[in-house]
Amino acid sequence: MKTIIKNGIVVTSTDTYKADLLIEKGIIKRISDQILPETDEKVIDASGQYIFPGGIDVHTHLAWPFQSTGTADDFVSGTRAAAAGGITSIINFTNPKRGQTLLDNLQEWKKKGEPSLIDYGFHSIISEYNDHVLEELPLLAEQEGVTSIKLFMAYKGELMVNDREMYKIMKKAGEAGIITNVHAENGDIIDELIAEAISKGNTDPIHHAYTRPPLTEAEATARALAIAEAANAPIYIVHVSCADALEKIEQAKKRDVQVVAETCPHYLVLDESYLSLPDFESGKYICSPPLREKWNQEYLWKGISSGLITTVGSDHCPFLFNGQKTLGRDNFAKIPNGVPGLEDIFSIVYHFGVHEGRISLQKFVDVISTGPAKTFGLYPKKGSIAIGFDADLVIFNPNTSRVITHKKQYQNVDYNLYEGIEVQGAITQVLSRGEVIVQDGYVVGHEGRGQYLFRKKIPAGQSSVSC
Amino acid sequence: MKTIIKNGIVVTSTDTYKADLLIEKGIIKRISDQILPETDEKVIDASGQYIFPGGIDVHTHLAWPFQSTGTADDFVSGTRAAAAGGITSIINFTNPKRGQTLLDNLQEWKKKGEPSLIDYGFHSIISEYNDHVLEELPLLAEQEGVTSIKLFMAYKGELMVNDREMYKIMKKAGEAGIITNVHAENGDIIDELIAEAISKGNTDPIHHAYTRPPLTEAEATARALAIAEAANAPIYIVHVSCADALEKIEQAKKRDVQVVAETCPHYLVLDESYLSLPDFESGKYICSPPLREKWNQEYLWKGISSGLITTVGSDHCPFLFNGQKTLGRDNFAKIPNGVPGLEDIFSIVYHFGVHEGRISLQKFVDVISTGPAKTFGLYPKKGSIAIGFDADLVIFNPNTSRVITHKKQYQNVDYNLYEGIEVQGAITQVLSRGEVIVQDGYVVGHEGRGQYLFRKKIPAGQSSVSC
Amino acid sequence: MKTIIKNGIVVTSTDTYKADLLIEKGIIKRISDQILPETDEKVIDASGQYIFPGGIDVHTHLAWPFQSTGTADDFVSGTRAAAAGGITSIINFTNPKRGQTLLDNLQEWKKKGEPSLIDYGFHSIISEYNDHVLEELPLLAEQEGVTSIKLFMAYKGELMVNDREMYKIMKKAGEAGIITNVHAENGDIIDELIAEAISKGNTDPIHHAYTRPPLTEAEATARALAIAEAANAPIYIVHVSCADALEKIEQAKKRDVQVVAETCPHYLVLDESYLSLPDFESGKYICSPPLREKWNQEYLWKGISSGLITTVGSDHCPFLFNGQKTLGRDNFAKIPNGVPGLEDIFSIVYHFGVHEGRISLQKFVDVISTGPAKTFGLYPKKGSIAIGFDADLVIFNPNTSRVITHKKQYQNVDYNLYEGIEVQGAITQVLSRGEVIVQDGYVVGHEGRGQYLFRKKIPAGQSSVSC
Amino acid sequence: MKTIIKNGIVVTSTDTYKADLLIEKGIIKRISDQILPETDEKVIDASGQYIFPGGIDVHTHLAWPFQSTGTADDFVSGTRAAAAGGITSIINFTNPKRGQTLLDNLQEWKKKGEPSLIDYGFHSIISEYNDHVLEELPLLAEQEGVTSIKLFMAYKGELMVNDREMYKIMKKAGEAGIITNVHAENGDIIDELIAEAISKGNTDPIHHAYTRPPLTEAEATARALAIAEAANAPIYIVHVSCADALEKIEQAKKRDVQVVAETCPHYLVLDESYLSLPDFESGKYICSPPLREKWNQEYLWKGISSGLITTVGSDHCPFLFNGQKTLGRDNFAKIPNGVPGLEDIFSIVYHFGVHEGRISLQKFVDVISTGPAKTFGLYPKKGSIAIGFDADLVIFNPNTSRVITHKKQYQNVDYNLYEGIEVQGAITQVLSRGEVIVQDGYVVGHEGRGQYLFRKKIPAGQSSVSC
Repeated sequence: MKTIIKNGIVVTSTDTYKADLLIEKGIIKRISDQILPETDEKVIDASGQYIFPGGIDVHTHLAWPFQSTGTADDFVSGTRAAAAGGITSIINFTNPKRGQTLLDNLQEWKKKGEPSLIDYGFHSIISEYNDHVLEELPLLAEQEGVTSIKLFMAYKGELMVNDREMYKIMKKAGEAGIITNVHAENGDIIDELIAEAISKGNTDPIHHAYTRPPLTEAEATARALAIAEAANAPIYIVHVSCADALEKIEQAKKRDVQVVAETCPHYLVLDESYLSLPDFESGKYICSPPLREKWNQEYLWKGISSGLITTVGSDHCPFLFNGQKTLGRDNFAKIPNGVPGLEDIFSIVYHFGVHEGRISLQKFVDVISTGPAKTFGLYPKKGSIAIGFDADLVIFNPNTSRVITHKKQYQNVDYNLYEGIEVQGAITQVLSRGEVIVQDGYVVGHEGRGQYLFRKKIPAGQSSVSC
Repeated sequence: MKTIIKNGIVVTSTDTYKADLLIEKGIIKRISDQILPETDEKVIDASGQYIFPGGIDVHTHLAWPFQSTGTADDFVSGTRAAAAGGITSIINFTNPKRGQTLLDNLQEWKKKGEPSLIDYGFHSIISEYNDHVLEELPLLAEQEGVTSIKLFMAYKGELMVNDREMYKIMKKAGEAGIITNVHAENGDIIDELIAEAISKGNTDPIHHAYTRPPLTEAEATARALAIAEAANAPIYIVHVSCADALEKIEQAKKRDVQVVAETCPHYLVLDESYLSLPDFESGKYICSPPLREKWNQEYLWKGISSGLITTVGSDHCPFLFNGQKTLGRDNFAKIPNGVPGLEDIFSIVYHFGVHEGRISLQKFVDVISTGPAKTFGLYPKKGSIAIGFDADLVIFNPNTSRVITHKKQYQNVDYNLYEGIEVQGAITQVLSRGEVIVQDGYVVGHEGRGQYLFRKKIPAGQSSVSC
Repeated sequence: MKTIIKNGIVVTSTDTYKADLLIEKGIIKRISDQILPETDEKVIDASGQYIFPGGIDVHTHLAWPFQSTGTADDFVSGTRAAAAGGITSIINFTNPKRGQTLLDNLQEWKKKGEPSLIDYGFHSIISEYNDHVLEELPLLAEQEGVTSIKLFMAYKGELMVNDREMYKIMKKAGEAGIITNVHAENGDIIDELIAEAISKGNTDPIHHAYTRPPLTEAEATARALAIAEAANAPIYIVHVSCADALEKIEQAKKRDVQVVAETCPHYLVLDESYLSLPDFESGKYICSPPLREKWNQEYLWKGISSGLITTVGSDHCPFLFNGQKTLGRDNFAKIPNGVPGLEDIFSIVYHFGVHEGRISLQKFVDVISTGPAKTFGLYPKKGSIAIGFDADLVIFNPNTSRVITHKKQYQNVDYNLYEGIEVQGAITQVLSRGEVIVQDGYVVGHEGRGQYLFRKKIPAGQSSVSC
Repeated sequence: MKTIIKNGIVVTSTDTYKADLLIEKGIIKRISDQILPETDEKVIDASGQYIFPGGIDVHTHLAWPFQSTGTADDFVSGTRAAAAGGITSIINFTNPKRGQTLLDNLQEWKKKGEPSLIDYGFHSIISEYNDHVLEELPLLAEQEGVTSIKLFMAYKGELMVNDREMYKIMKKAGEAGIITNVHAENGDIIDELIAEAISKGNTDPIHHAYTRPPLTEAEATARALAIAEAANAPIYIVHVSCADALEKIEQAKKRDVQVVAETCPHYLVLDESYLSLPDFESGKYICSPPLREKWNQEYLWKGISSGLITTVGSDHCPFLFNGQKTLGRDNFAKIPNGVPGLEDIFSIVYHFGVHEGRISLQKFVDVISTGPAKTFGLYPKKGSIAIGFDADLVIFNPNTSRVITHKKQYQNVDYNLYEGIEVQGAITQVLSRGEVIVQDGYVVGHEGRGQYLFRKKIPAGQSSVSC
């Protein structure tokens, strides 16, 4: 089966140019000024439209048990939403069970992932240190292509590991070709600030922000980077939300720490004031780290344009407003931490970034596709438009606009963070390995067509290269 | 006429992948997993070799009168050397005459450039401020495609302009879509330091370095950036040689000054100790700014890998050792300031950068080709390998090595800065707009085939984007 | 003649303690828990009051011709105002005439200073470079005790010197034990910004601020510091008005540049919004550098408390509102640059600094007396309360308050910058070399009693020590 | 009983001046140009000698059980050594026992302190968090005048507390007027680095340094400062050893964290190379943090002169070489961590600081006496020479020199860190509350004459003021 995409404008993290593409067996085979159909190729006309490499969202929590509940999207609804939103690959977090080996746990998650519409991989979360963990790390990478793990510096008693455990795991991970995702918030201080707030009757959602102030994120970020430095291992700081944390990353880069920084669309666009919305509307915006004061946004965008931040992840961790978020109506500490974002990340970053002039088209491709692919061992199969790459493509009409609303979304949530925002551009078609899975804005790909992503090892010293 | 390049490894500032290329009428028409000759296409086998976009050296001084003498290369010898060294486009500095208009001056230089083997453009140097200059700037850009000028903050009485003149020129230039190159050294302080040194009998070449200390470069760099900020105009800092100056650029970027920074191969690889070589060998290494203490090199390389420095230019300003450099045997102040580098820039940056592990292949392409093209309005005709681009290509064998020596060079100088250094890799063929101008390492392109580069305007706010 | 001051609270830049003082022949002879009159000593009861060392204002422009007019205070009215305001020593700027030697000029100024009520010295302004100047510098220091000069980087054609001249003068000055005051604003850029504004009809006073933006001060400050570094000479940056300039000073200190920084009361307390007051009220607040955006104030206060700024000077450069300031009613560029401040500096810094909790009592003494004395060679005769020091003392009642108004001032101006502000504390008595010159808030000292201050040389490496 | 000190040169952290002093009942009663004996006053001639306020060493570990052994000095030998070395007050660390209340523990330590020759106070170490601790803090300050505590971020299982405990204790301490000393090293990482080293057979003393790299100190320092910021409490960082940690303190000061930084004489003068001395000589220099690479020293001295570091403490934690240090001859991890320094701190800081030109006489007094006194609530009884202060004085002859050797020391150790170094100046007499306790260099004060130091509360926002 062959497909020709004609007359589109190819956009990579370096170039923008007009060309036709020929796809064969899911692979990009030819890029040319003109490709004429020879036999029975499927022909897609992309006149006037951008052709982007498919978005890669390396930060999703589908089917994820958390804080006495679980996220509202499974791999079917979640990957359908992803596809609709221009995402053709995800890397989802696993959730370990006490006493279970990493490899056993992974098998469970691979099983969960099978109904996916798009390609999927996993970061193994390690929340329980033991010697067995160290032995399993090389196996994860070699046998399973899981070349990333995740550690938490918060959620003590549930997910948090201590500094010595972090050091040992990261060191071993680095040696095994594995990069470590780190959730950097000082759980100890936060737990006490929450206890203080609750004891004073400060239970409104805004206190979620007040009990996780920027210094708790900045402190943990600095500590994680010091541990990475000591361990001589690559580190990926997830969901950087504020200028103070970003400054620590900048300082670490100068010391040659091998760090990659991610931010999320909600930190780029929304701010702390949403946590004071009336009628518990604020509950919809509870995530960790919390939304920050608005001035931080400029620093995050500048971080992207300067190359300090090289990926954007959705941190898609969706909870229903009614029934899940409302668990914490009377106590912010009981609101499940997480927001939906997988379906909108591509559009939001394009609109507020490219359309509003904050970043170039190239930087957009870089943070939404090339950067994530290079960071997590998916490159050079994913992450660009070039000969031999998977034909994961987004055909995007920049000359139209649409209004975001939860009424027209695939993700299984009863609200949308960006409700009512009119964004420039619209995804018309999405191809995954050459197959059209979104047609005229509607998902047409079928369940179970997604493939497991066996990823390459992360060589020391190179994971930070995204362009 | 068509050409097929088969089996090479295409390298851009984003990607590395195996593909065949089809060139037609000098333009890249097709990139494919396999292209079979259909009729009489010329076929080049690039098995196992890299295919890079042609190098773009935006800092050359061919046929340049300076300091009572003139550079040793004209546009024939110079562009032949360039071609041999993988450079397919240059932007040369003009040299104004007192009282001459910019446009008249440019015509003279375009004439001089005609015998070039490769494509050539010009930066107009402005050393004499008057109202006429301001009126000519928009004409330069619109009529002549000269979208860059150059100002000097040193060489008082010869080239230097004062701060008010700089401000006025840069402001007008910015409005006209022109970026301003700045030679940033504090000429006032330097002139006095030289006078002091000479008066004390300190005439050895090392005093060239002592009389142009890093603070004179850092100061002028900071001042130029402040002027650009006041003028709201794009600025290009040529030949950044030291960490102190680079720090000023980093600070200015944080203030959103639209700055692009260039360094040169000799600052990346050589150091101040060369200025103490015996028997006036030191004279060969006299350039301005001078070679710096070795520790600065790490900062420059890191500046490249972090995206602070986005171009490397040769500052090719060649003088014969015998007869020119030796003019200053008894007085460093009489040594013509400048070193040859056009023929070696590509190899030196590849070897010390990529081969020795300091930067990625992608960063190499970025600073040697994509960055310069995007900065100076040559993109998207030059600077990448993609459909519709000029087929300016370098075929490079990374699996061989060669020893640099002046005995085998094309540039018209009787020495080589890098004499005796064995570099990894060798340029086997170079194509300029599809035409093979270097074959098996030998220049086969003919004089006069180069074309004048009419360049695009530099839009405010975007010139610093190189990837 | 002996005087005993009883029951006061002595405050130095280190200590606060209760003690009696005995003064003999103008000198502090004894400090004791109790001193009983023996014969006919004059006894002053200072119960419950602070005894501060007399204020030293090292930045005054009495009798100063400037911008086609002259300041409104001469040495009589000016030093009377100073005394009333707790200032017991001033260092005034000279104003050179074209062609006049520094020494001849100084004689004229010493003559002008003779009617002073308090002690007075001079900084020699050098606005015209020639070799004679270099020869005179050592004589200034040795014969006349003038161990400070001043250079301007603005007011081209009137006062400004170029970088080479600055370097030469500062180098020679440093060798001669002289510290160089620098007015750091980039005159070149400012002159052009003014010309632009005027040509566009932007003539309101607020354009005074817009045409002297912080970057022009920050740039010149950085340049002055680089020149001081090259010259290996001590430098005193007058009237630092903004955070950007202060940052340059901080960076220079890290490079071991021997720099002392001064700010002024109006930068600490007033802000740019005053330049938009209606009915040309704004004209009263025109000085250079201009008042800045309010957020800068916090940085200046923090600069004092951290030791980055070690002196506060009034930059007293008074012009009558009616007749002088109003010269520029239709064109901000014609408003004489300068504000009165000598009479209020002590009170304003105490009130907004100590009383409002921004700095300690010790820091107050440091910046108002000890710092200036140590910086300019007056120490250890002036600047502290200790055995052997001149009995220059301010007796200050912290438990009262008063409202500042031009109706009750001694300075010869028809307005007051701080009109209507109620400040805590009041000066009750002032002693100059043991003589009471202010009694119950009224000046009782007579004209001509002030003495010329022959100052010590400034040793390299030590002028920045103020505590 | 009265004493007159005649003809000395009084040195405070602000002034240097010649005066006579009269002491009555242990208090400075009069400072005068001349004091003549009236009746039977004891007269001390200090002609040509400096009179300094007595040194205050706020960092001593006398009689301190640690790491399965105990320090070699008790309060008799230790305070005798202190007196000999110009120290007239110490603040010693307590050592809590599991289960014991802070108040009970303090009583034990006050008992231990009774035989002291000089005045003594305590910092209570808290190594075990419980609610009782929080309740006791206000009592410590109010009933016992213990207005400082200490927390450890290293020595897990023995002394270390976690971040949440730190936060809670510091917050409560701040509210109670107590400043918290913090030993800032990341114990978790260090414990693992030690385990790694031992497992690889890396047991030589140099591995003590390698397993406690600067990043472990810098990280913990940054974390401690973040916790202080969250808790809005004053913090005292003990024994800052390296530039990296100091940088964190500088950053925190800019955020208005109320921090005071201490360094120690051994970090100012000795370096990591001592840990490679042969024949286990290296064992003598084992302390934590370890001695650092030599280049750090410049940053520490500059930290003092810029006001970033405002105290120097000895961290006197003496172990005998034979029998104690040698416990770790085969395993660096078994060498007791600590070095002697109480007897030499005054001389070492004077010699390498003042005599060698790194700091002024005033800065010397500031870090050795005034700074510690102001930081820890001893001021205004201790820390300066002024009316009403305790007559704790050091009479110091700057015109002689002496060679440091353990053969002539009072401290109970069989070696000296500075063996063989010739230092300029010598302490001739020391007075403690007016009593001569060192005469002609020999200790003549008797055991038990020292008094317990009941200290003032530390007001929020002011503890960092030391001059």
